[in-house]
Amino acid sequence: MAAALDAALGAWRLLLGPARVLSSPSELMPFAASTAARPVPPLAVLRPVSHDEVVALVRSAGEFDIPLYPLSTGRNWGYGDACPPTSGQVIVDLGGMNRILQVDSELAYAVIEPGVTQAQLAGHLAERALPLWMDCTGAGPDTSLVGNILERGFGHSPYGNRMLHVAGMRIVLANGDTLETGFGHFAHASAAHLYPYGVGPWLDGLFTQSNFGIVTSLGFWLMPQSKMVSHMIASVAEPAGIARVVDALRPLRLDGTLRSVVHIGNDLRVLSGGMVFPSHLAPAGPPLPAQVRASLRAQVGIGAWTVSAALYGRPAQVREARRAIVRAVGGLARLRFLDERTLAIGAAAARLLGRGALGRRLSAQVDLGRSLLNMNRGVPDGRFLAGAYWRRRGGWPAGFPAGANPARDGCGMMWLAPVLPMRGEELLRVYGLVEPLFASGRLDLFATFSMINERTLGGVLTICFDKEDAAETARAQACYEAAFARLLGAGYVPYRVAPHSMSALDNGHDSYWRTVSRIKSALDPQGLIAPGRYMPR
Amino acid sequence: MAAALDAALGAWRLLLGPARVLSSPSELMPFAASTAARPVPPLAVLRPVSHDEVVALVRSAGEFDIPLYPLSTGRNWGYGDACPPTSGQVIVDLGGMNRILQVDSELAYAVIEPGVTQAQLAGHLAERALPLWMDCTGAGPDTSLVGNILERGFGHSPYGNRMLHVAGMRIVLANGDTLETGFGHFAHASAAHLYPYGVGPWLDGLFTQSNFGIVTSLGFWLMPQSKMVSHMIASVAEPAGIARVVDALRPLRLDGTLRSVVHIGNDLRVLSGGMVFPSHLAPAGPPLPAQVRASLRAQVGIGAWTVSAALYGRPAQVREARRAIVRAVGGLARLRFLDERTLAIGAAAARLLGRGALGRRLSAQVDLGRSLLNMNRGVPDGRFLAGAYWRRRGGWPAGFPAGANPARDGCGMMWLAPVLPMRGEELLRVYGLVEPLFASGRLDLFATFSMINERTLGGVLTICFDKEDAAETARAQACYEAAFARLLGAGYVPYRVAPHSMSALDNGHDSYWRTVSRIKSALDPQGLIAPGRYMPR
Repeated sequence: MAAALDAALGAWRLLLGPARVLSSPSELMPFAASTAARPVPPLAVLRPVSHDEVVALVRSAGEFDIPLYPLSTGRNWGYGDACPPTSGQVIVDLGGMNRILQVDSELAYAVIEPGVTQAQLAGHLAERALPLWMDCTGAGPDTSLVGNILERGFGHSPYGNRMLHVAGMRIVLANGDTLETGFGHFAHASAAHLYPYGVGPWLDGLFTQSNFGIVTSLGFWLMPQSKMVSHMIASVAEPAGIARVVDALRPLRLDGTLRSVVHIGNDLRVLSGGMVFPSHLAPAGPPLPAQVRASLRAQVGIGAWTVSAALYGRPAQVREARRAIVRAVGGLARLRFLDERTLAIGAAAARLLGRGALGRRLSAQVDLGRSLLNMNRGVPDGRFLAGAYWRRRGGWPAGFPAGANPARDGCGMMWLAPVLPMRGEELLRVYGLVEPLFASGRLDLFATFSMINERTLGGVLTICFDKEDAAETARAQACYEAAFARLLGAGYVPYRVAPHSMSALDNGHDSYWRTVSRIKSALDPQGLIAPGRYMPR
Repeated sequence: MAAALDAALGAWRLLLGPARVLSSPSELMPFAASTAARPVPPLAVLRPVSHDEVVALVRSAGEFDIPLYPLSTGRNWGYGDACPPTSGQVIVDLGGMNRILQVDSELAYAVIEPGVTQAQLAGHLAERALPLWMDCTGAGPDTSLVGNILERGFGHSPYGNRMLHVAGMRIVLANGDTLETGFGHFAHASAAHLYPYGVGPWLDGLFTQSNFGIVTSLGFWLMPQSKMVSHMIASVAEPAGIARVVDALRPLRLDGTLRSVVHIGNDLRVLSGGMVFPSHLAPAGPPLPAQVRASLRAQVGIGAWTVSAALYGRPAQVREARRAIVRAVGGLARLRFLDERTLAIGAAAARLLGRGALGRRLSAQVDLGRSLLNMNRGVPDGRFLAGAYWRRRGGWPAGFPAGANPARDGCGMMWLAPVLPMRGEELLRVYGLVEPLFASGRLDLFATFSMINERTLGGVLTICFDKEDAAETARAQACYEAAFARLLGAGYVPYRVAPHSMSALDNGHDSYWRTVSRIKSALDPQGLIAPGRYMPR
């Protein structure tokens, strides 16, 4: 292996030039950094900048029989970051393939490479004053759009179910073939990025959460800008009260009144957006004592749960949606609606109140509101990564959120992402299943449940831990494993997993995974691309 | 082969009982009936009624090495009907697997088997007064929902892009394995039919327009009933005028104001819904002379193009959508909106006018309006099959549209279905590409262009011909082939094809089809399931 690797590194240096082949421990270290308890370092890192270079790398990896682990920007926070599922893999870092190949204002789409970040595409649209918004996640400005899409991530806009807004992938297969999905493989195809399915088997889904190929570009649909965006914030006082709110909002999500992904966060999820663990108030460490938690809730003005969603449309459409929301949950939650007008009033009031406590609090709320509205309109913001730093010693790094990078900054964080039917009782049941595990692990439970489509809630349960504290790290790992197993056993399957959990998805006699592995053998008999990735056997 | 078939038939008779194994020419004849020029008869027909029987049949077909061609109800009108792509296949008719396995009113979905028809599910919902509507196509009451979904068909409602409203398939693979997609293969999975992707590669797309397995059930999402439905009808006087209407409606389709599939039909498409070819007015046969065509247009009160779309929502939402439509195309087309109220007024007026010409015309319009609104609300209607009978000798059969079956009734019809970017100029270009071919073939060109998603038009160009006229049949076939080639050459790839055109999709060095065939080899090395189906090589 070592000899083969040396020979391969030599060949790759000839191919890419020495600067784009990393192999020294100091160069590899950043790639091994992970918010997970156990990082997995790569053998080397290769940095192609074009589709043809990727083809050449794949062919050459085949000759040397060395597996490649492709990543876009490697910022898969909370789900393994840049780490391959197993050691012995060479990272193909596609961050340098960052061209925006096309933007069509009329038909509202872009064609992008894997290295294109949220900030880059948002900037591109803004600089050219194009009348388009992109869907945006809270993962920060420097994260890859393609990487998130291929992990089937969710954003915050009406296009938040991102997989439904992709058409036409270009893929390098393990044998070096270039595959174009949709209509793209037909000459002169005019709808290559407008109609996903093409004719014949629709293959795109195969290349998400998988290891069947390396996607080098894809068509990503953009939203025409709305005349108006209004951000709803609903505050629910008591923990169990969220169930009725979920049930009351479900019909509005189902009938298209609420077209964007609705987020439901518990108090800790909201609090952790504005502070790190307050050791001065809780010297014994986590979990945050109930009394402190209650007093922080009162201070920030939130209840046990906060529901947040954006309304898009012409003013008359937005007003009608607001009325429907008020009718549905006005009696169950405290409702506020933010828009440009309310923010301007808030900002003016904050200026009047000056630098006193009230003025500062209002000013902070206006800032947060602006970040939310920006994200709704496709402008990413690093502040939504704040929660990852909850247990980091030293708290937020200087300059936060600029350049926020939880893995590099040594944050300890793992995510569990069960999917559940969109029913209030199911939310409470899932919460009830994991809460005792967090309590016995002496960990704070941050929870969000998002209406990721019209019929399900996508839970994200965050475990934050102090990585410098070996005991806390061990408790976090144990809590993660116990919660993962308990949720899976109860039928709450995750929508996405970190590499170290992939093997837990297969009970050993599941024909789904058997089928996946037969497809893998057909497309990549040598096991060259990302072995182990969503491939338990 | 004959000996193997005899042995297999014997085994299948033991397995299913003799009544569910058809092999005599008279029994097979209905399956060979096709609206296409060249029907392809099966070797035999098997009628399993359960998933387990399908598993047993697949295993036994493997032993006898006889290929199976699964179909749901075999009513794939215009795209090959029940015919396999090649002779020598045994049809597995899943029409007897027609159970509605589950309906959930709260989360709005059904789980259905392949034999469930549009009328059956619509009736099920109506009988139980469930507050749900199903998406409906114009293919008539007796057609299969699953069959249409697996061909990636489109209906008329906000759920018209059917592929996006399916979650959790159960599939029999060629080796007899049962595969459940989405979360369905996990024990106790509560979101099996609520969240399509599952975890790991999303495989559903593989089983559409393909031959990788036999789908025996799937989860099909239903719409919560809207408070109001309004049907827009826009009439465009001049042929070229449709381009500006497409461009003016595009922003409303893109921004979600128009959530349902918008249909755009030319005059012949609309006229053929109410009459067959008027030989008394055009004794020389097709194409319909321009003057006759113009006079029929005037008589029915339509222009060169008719745009039709349904608006759904609460009354305030529907009113706002109407206002936006009027603003966008009020100056470009004559607009009407149908809803329950306007239909009631029309019906009353028709009664007052009595049995005179005006009264009969208004009454017919009210009937058509009711059929349209019914279809918008998921109640299928056979009248939308009328066009298939345009050139049938004897016209509509007695009792039409009850039991309409264009293949059995000897209609000659073929469909071309190019996808184009949603731009007016592209519509005119596609029309211009095929019009001369229809003219030189002396055939009427029925055209619809539907806004099947937010960015494309799905064209359906219908060739109707008199099957009893050999020369007209030959001209129809030649026109079909020339138009298919011309559209494909210009980059207007079809979204769906008839079996006899599948081989034309591959230029012989296309890595997409190479990949498809590698997957086929992995899942079905023996080539047991539907050889040739969306598998050009």
